[in-house]
Amino acid sequence: MGKIICTGLGPGNPDLMSVRSDRVIRGAGHVAYFRKKGRQGQARRIVEGMLAPQVVEYAMEYPVTTELPFDGAEYNDALAMFYDDWADRLVAVAAGADVVVLCEGDPFFYGSFMHLYTRFQGRVEVEVIPGITGMTGCWTATGTPITWGDDVLTVLMGTLPEADMVDHMRAADALVVMKTGRNLPKVRAALQAAGRLQDAWLVERGTMPDQRLARLVDVDVSDVPYFAIVLVHGQGRRPEIGGVE
Amino acid sequence: MGKIICTGLGPGNPDLMSVRSDRVIRGAGHVAYFRKKGRQGQARRIVEGMLAPQVVEYAMEYPVTTELPFDGAEYNDALAMFYDDWADRLVAVAAGADVVVLCEGDPFFYGSFMHLYTRFQGRVEVEVIPGITGMTGCWTATGTPITWGDDVLTVLMGTLPEADMVDHMRAADALVVMKTGRNLPKVRAALQAAGRLQDAWLVERGTMPDQRLARLVDVDVSDVPYFAIVLVHGQGRRPEIGGVE
Repeated sequence: MGKIICTGLGPGNPDLMSVRSDRVIRGAGHVAYFRKKGRQGQARRIVEGMLAPQVVEYAMEYPVTTELPFDGAEYNDALAMFYDDWADRLVAVAAGADVVVLCEGDPFFYGSFMHLYTRFQGRVEVEVIPGITGMTGCWTATGTPITWGDDVLTVLMGTLPEADMVDHMRAADALVVMKTGRNLPKVRAALQAAGRLQDAWLVERGTMPDQRLARLVDVDVSDVPYFAIVLVHGQGRRPEIGGVE
Repeated sequence: MGKIICTGLGPGNPDLMSVRSDRVIRGAGHVAYFRKKGRQGQARRIVEGMLAPQVVEYAMEYPVTTELPFDGAEYNDALAMFYDDWADRLVAVAAGADVVVLCEGDPFFYGSFMHLYTRFQGRVEVEVIPGITGMTGCWTATGTPITWGDDVLTVLMGTLPEADMVDHMRAADALVVMKTGRNLPKVRAALQAAGRLQDAWLVERGTMPDQRLARLVDVDVSDVPYFAIVLVHGQGRRPEIGGVE
């Protein structure tokens, strides 16, 4: 009997995955990962050069979604079937060998793996190896701490209604906004309404060689990838530099 | 000319630090870390067995603080002098060799390193290696994803006023509360007022062999360490299991 081992890959640079994930991936006989149809996929790209020659790969290609409304029942049904099907297939493989599932960032922080995870319960042993989240990679890229002292940090999705975003942006000290892309004009408007736009940064591919970092006010918000992250740093209490004597 | 390399150690298990942190720590000639006076310290404990035999260690012992009021000017002055002094000393060491600073969790997510970091600016080259945050280790320990779909996650410090905590606890879907310890009775009261107490978990030493996990309602809140973390998992949208044909 094998088990399912879900490995967090971290923010993108293979050097930033955990020692345990690195070891498990290099020793894997069966590796599964999500990707868009026809793409290599970011998870698979991160482990390029790490897999054993005889590894068996399972590319879990999302069903085509561009022709369906995002919140529609049809879209949700297609995804549910997709996760049901892949959970069954991986459980079958795990009857004979360990299966390593590659997850960008951390497996339990948003992301697709969790939909498989719930379907594995009671059927197969599952081990989860945490990873550095994509947002951590992005605030590292800014060269500025995200939170100090008693700062409140709120993580929002760009898919939320604008009014909800504004309320959260006003209440928190530090902000992370994920799932930006086509939602970025709305995110920008919400930050403006909350008085936080001037302090907002947009980060793409944090920790990767081609990382991109810009003040959000300077960005063309019509052309930004879905995975780009918006950050507002906290300014919490701290002991003053050279402030005594 | 050397540089300062700040390595995130992750949530506690040495196997969960990044491949890059692992390599840098094993190759270090000079290693600095914070600790309470008279203690080994958690950062130093995590790297036990990893350091080279000839390494030079710099134990940065916090000034005694138990006799000073936490928010007092005297306390802040003592801390400011402590950070000023250690920044000067490490900059001096870095004139001749690289210095590795060990940071629990991630260096830019709360924590003490940031107070040195601001003092290094313009004086020495600094490299920051991110790490898995302690909260990520804790939600991994619960075996349950912390956030799904459009969930809003808010991270709070137990040092906040209770009324502020209640507002944030009502507004967010998923919650992380850090710096608990003596603040835990207040945190518990705030969760109760916000209607979230029944879903709250207390996690100590997540990912470590002696990790402890309990529902907060079952915990004696008078005896909990400062680093224990309270979690409330999000329940966001997800495609139904086996819900289609």
